[in-house]
Amino acid sequence: MKVSIIGATGYAGAELVRLLLHHPEVEIEMLTSESFAGKKLSEVYPAIKCNIVCNHLNVEKIKSPLVFTALPHGKSAKIAGNLVDRGIKVVDFSADFRINCARVYSLWYGIPHQREDLLPKAVYGLPEIYRERIKNATLVANPGCYPTSVILALAPLLKNKLIKPEGIVVDSKSGVSGAGRNPTLSTHFPEANENINAYKVTGHRHLPEMEQELSKIAGEKVKVTFVPHLIPVNRGILSTCYAEPLKRLTTEDVLDIYTEFYKKEPFVEILPPGKFPHTKEVLWSNRCRIGINVTNSSKVVIICVIDNLVKGASGQAIQNMNLMCGFDESTGLK
Amino acid sequence: MKVSIIGATGYAGAELVRLLLHHPEVEIEMLTSESFAGKKLSEVYPAIKCNIVCNHLNVEKIKSPLVFTALPHGKSAKIAGNLVDRGIKVVDFSADFRINCARVYSLWYGIPHQREDLLPKAVYGLPEIYRERIKNATLVANPGCYPTSVILALAPLLKNKLIKPEGIVVDSKSGVSGAGRNPTLSTHFPEANENINAYKVTGHRHLPEMEQELSKIAGEKVKVTFVPHLIPVNRGILSTCYAEPLKRLTTEDVLDIYTEFYKKEPFVEILPPGKFPHTKEVLWSNRCRIGINVTNSSKVVIICVIDNLVKGASGQAIQNMNLMCGFDESTGLK
Amino acid sequence: MKVSIIGATGYAGAELVRLLLHHPEVEIEMLTSESFAGKKLSEVYPAIKCNIVCNHLNVEKIKSPLVFTALPHGKSAKIAGNLVDRGIKVVDFSADFRINCARVYSLWYGIPHQREDLLPKAVYGLPEIYRERIKNATLVANPGCYPTSVILALAPLLKNKLIKPEGIVVDSKSGVSGAGRNPTLSTHFPEANENINAYKVTGHRHLPEMEQELSKIAGEKVKVTFVPHLIPVNRGILSTCYAEPLKRLTTEDVLDIYTEFYKKEPFVEILPPGKFPHTKEVLWSNRCRIGINVTNSSKVVIICVIDNLVKGASGQAIQNMNLMCGFDESTGLK
Amino acid sequence: MKVSIIGATGYAGAELVRLLLHHPEVEIEMLTSESFAGKKLSEVYPAIKCNIVCNHLNVEKIKSPLVFTALPHGKSAKIAGNLVDRGIKVVDFSADFRINCARVYSLWYGIPHQREDLLPKAVYGLPEIYRERIKNATLVANPGCYPTSVILALAPLLKNKLIKPEGIVVDSKSGVSGAGRNPTLSTHFPEANENINAYKVTGHRHLPEMEQELSKIAGEKVKVTFVPHLIPVNRGILSTCYAEPLKRLTTEDVLDIYTEFYKKEPFVEILPPGKFPHTKEVLWSNRCRIGINVTNSSKVVIICVIDNLVKGASGQAIQNMNLMCGFDESTGLK
Repeated sequence: MKVSIIGATGYAGAELVRLLLHHPEVEIEMLTSESFAGKKLSEVYPAIKCNIVCNHLNVEKIKSPLVFTALPHGKSAKIAGNLVDRGIKVVDFSADFRINCARVYSLWYGIPHQREDLLPKAVYGLPEIYRERIKNATLVANPGCYPTSVILALAPLLKNKLIKPEGIVVDSKSGVSGAGRNPTLSTHFPEANENINAYKVTGHRHLPEMEQELSKIAGEKVKVTFVPHLIPVNRGILSTCYAEPLKRLTTEDVLDIYTEFYKKEPFVEILPPGKFPHTKEVLWSNRCRIGINVTNSSKVVIICVIDNLVKGASGQAIQNMNLMCGFDESTGLK
Repeated sequence: MKVSIIGATGYAGAELVRLLLHHPEVEIEMLTSESFAGKKLSEVYPAIKCNIVCNHLNVEKIKSPLVFTALPHGKSAKIAGNLVDRGIKVVDFSADFRINCARVYSLWYGIPHQREDLLPKAVYGLPEIYRERIKNATLVANPGCYPTSVILALAPLLKNKLIKPEGIVVDSKSGVSGAGRNPTLSTHFPEANENINAYKVTGHRHLPEMEQELSKIAGEKVKVTFVPHLIPVNRGILSTCYAEPLKRLTTEDVLDIYTEFYKKEPFVEILPPGKFPHTKEVLWSNRCRIGINVTNSSKVVIICVIDNLVKGASGQAIQNMNLMCGFDESTGLK
Repeated sequence: MKVSIIGATGYAGAELVRLLLHHPEVEIEMLTSESFAGKKLSEVYPAIKCNIVCNHLNVEKIKSPLVFTALPHGKSAKIAGNLVDRGIKVVDFSADFRINCARVYSLWYGIPHQREDLLPKAVYGLPEIYRERIKNATLVANPGCYPTSVILALAPLLKNKLIKPEGIVVDSKSGVSGAGRNPTLSTHFPEANENINAYKVTGHRHLPEMEQELSKIAGEKVKVTFVPHLIPVNRGILSTCYAEPLKRLTTEDVLDIYTEFYKKEPFVEILPPGKFPHTKEVLWSNRCRIGINVTNSSKVVIICVIDNLVKGASGQAIQNMNLMCGFDESTGLK
Repeated sequence: MKVSIIGATGYAGAELVRLLLHHPEVEIEMLTSESFAGKKLSEVYPAIKCNIVCNHLNVEKIKSPLVFTALPHGKSAKIAGNLVDRGIKVVDFSADFRINCARVYSLWYGIPHQREDLLPKAVYGLPEIYRERIKNATLVANPGCYPTSVILALAPLLKNKLIKPEGIVVDSKSGVSGAGRNPTLSTHFPEANENINAYKVTGHRHLPEMEQELSKIAGEKVKVTFVPHLIPVNRGILSTCYAEPLKRLTTEDVLDIYTEFYKKEPFVEILPPGKFPHTKEVLWSNRCRIGINVTNSSKVVIICVIDNLVKGASGQAIQNMNLMCGFDESTGLK
């Protein structure tokens, strides 16, 4: 099957190329990049042995049966929409189709939604939650990196109504590639290195996405306090989640619930009691690892790690593509 | 005034030497080190221009009017005790005199306390809370690095009874020097670098210290869920604290309370609304910087940064010494 | 084909497991580890999904037709020798069979050689130089990481007698994984991080290995000044080599010679004029990338990068195995 | 004495402010910054407690008896020239007055020199070489960071005519702050981190500066092959220099010569045989540390470390100011 990638030279786009080169069922038909049009991908990323030349985007020219759109929010809606209108399957990396409500989208992203009509059609691409819907989807909204780590961390407890839906604390730590490839002062090496800081403390755009999805899982309004932190590593997210149990639970109880909930999942691993995950255990892979502790002061602590560029972006996109196209879900991801 | 340092070649001891070399009122009389006896400090730490030769410890030989004991817990109680018995002022870096109750100490540190008789005499060395008592103390228990960041972050709210004393979440991130100078697998460069992990999730020894001190400030039992994380930087602690307000508060309300609470403090800085501290802003200094946000879902978020080796250890020890000896509190620390 | 790994839990051993899991022609029969006997490899390295339990070494029990020995020098000679005596093919990671002369070995490694009889049988496992001999070898001495980068950098010029065989300068920079997994003070995170240093300046054990192999290529005695440096990254070696041309050469002349010399090599890439390699371009891969400049002051500068754990160790070992067993040379390495 | 800094918000300017705050003889009168005019320096660099507000540059308004100009090359000549014309002493951080010959300057910097008339007046600000001339200078060209490390490394051998003036190899490794504060792709954290690379291999602008000064010291034309490398640390330069002795020399011979040459220098330290410097030993200080080895293959290896922002920029500027103003040379630098 032929696929194309729109916006192939950002970190997520390039990671997608790297992974797709090893996928036995697909072939890359076209890569687009505005910044590096005319260059081979391997000239932009010498670590990736891909000699396809990037083109300027001409959306009408794209004919592949499935397209990945890795564009900034706001730029994606129209382009992905055009493809969907023409019957092309789309996995969209932007936030444009993640938020179900156009008004909430406008509030957080500061722009009107340009294809509100497609929102009912878009499926939130977290296979562990929406596998069946993804199989039949034409338009999949690939989740944000933070929400992926947080939803996987909290879904079993919320689904089973074992924690209070309010007062949940999510303290996330992310590597710098999460900020994208555009150089800024805060990601300039001498600024980011040997430093730890929280950012967007008063409101990060992944918050409404988390709350929307967690609320759907819980069947009631979930409220999260979310603080992301920038950590001087290239890759990896570690989210430490704190919730209040609604009844007496032991660590073992909670581990049993998680093991059951994720028992058929190829990419989610629950650690034994007393063990907690390190980001380096999942780097370059589509794995998610979760460790749990119930404290004496009666909080459930759930710690979840993913690679922000793989399970938090491009690996998950391929997992979604595999489902949409009837391939084995793990193809190209092991 | 002459001072001696017992255990001068660990990271905290060496940082203390570095700082004392610039202190106008004191002179180092003796350094001890079991691992590097016979060597000049500058041979062990070429970055520090100090040619004093380290000796094996012979506690009876130490005559300085004030001694810093930078030994592991369990090893300090007897030695510091011997000095105190002889009328020598002691600033002790270990945990041995931080926990007021010998039974709690035994529970967390796994050994009986060897100088329980001195516990009533020991003053917890956090000047922002115990300044007057420190001035008259003979034995000061220098606080742990994590508790320093957490107590400074939460004291104003607890003192003013503005947050629930239960359900507080403290998510701390620390540089690797906090683990000491002894090489281990988890601090081996290729293991710690490019990695983020939580550790001692089921119980870190700084927890009872935090809860004890926060409870005294609050005047009631305070319960904290504390998860420390290891971050690949050399220095710095960032503690993100989450608490539930007991009444409606805005960010500005809380900032006013903090500004008032710390208005005379030379080393505590409260940031304006919307600003949050970076660890690099306080590295190599005795400063503590605090940023605050009250979220829509009604949590107060307090973010506090210190240098774990300065305000979290050696700088604070000098601050304590200055108080105990009648020097200006900031001497040698600006 | 079944293979076993003796010493599977060091960095090179674990990297070998990681790579072999993707090799379509081989299956791992046995892993040995003294430090982690009884544990699954995935318990020691959670990033590697391998549930084989490590055993204590009992060399007589090993029956695989090919064995990788990843042991420290001195420990390998007898064990690899036992296997070879029994007709088992061996790729040895240690230095024990790299130095052709037992006396030189003793001089640099400080111990007598324990299987001097096997030295004539051992083939130096650099496929770009010894491909045909490796195909027929029973015992392959897998090259050191520094020598791999240096021999590939200098072979075309020496083979063509275009540079002086004396006065060559090799300035190498290596990531910390090159020092192995055993924690030491110099590889302790707070010591190695934010630091650059040269080490073993008065004599590194890879020097006689380099000089031996370069001399064979040149057909005359080659003398190298070699200074290795420790750089705070996990992986990667960059060797900057400086030589004096014997006749007037331009950068283009030299690039032509390298392109010709390596034209059939699957893992060596020569960069165009004005381009120089970054270590990140080869990390996690068996690639070697080389950039060249002839300076105004008439030095040839050759810059070569490899991943020390792949082309500098485990990837090269697989390349050797592929040759020894008649598999396509690149199998499992693309 | 009052001083002003033009271009105070680059890394060198800010480091200069940090150091001057502790200098007992001077007071900062004015800071200028085009990017941050109207802001306090402490808003741009919260780590530096300096509440002076930066102004747009109006050179006529500057009246301080000594001014530091920390501007990019090309921008400095006219401004520094204006100050010098008005009798103000200037320490200029740019390259504009380092190259004695306007033609060579134009060749390397690509622009005509705008104050060629001042070149004879400018003194190269390396106190270890030009102390007496600096004392009487009005215009001091503060040396580049690489040249400082290289000239200090090679001066004793060249001055004593003990090495060949041609064929010298200088392999330098620098932290990323050397590239300045302007974000670029190559200094973007995920690009620079976990990477090692050589850059400007075909010609770095510090080469003519080195060769000019080394030639003056040697009294004959010195030719250097210089390759700088980017290392993922914030600060520090390590230059490894390789030269060919003109007569038989031992390591001890060379160390004696260096010890004698630098015996009165407050900031240059020669290490004993077998010891080599680490960059971390000199970070945040004006120190320079040098280790030496004469190899079997008869090269002299000289390894020199400095902090690129202190001895390689702002510390050296203060050292120059101290000399120009009759203060003790080490004032504010210990």
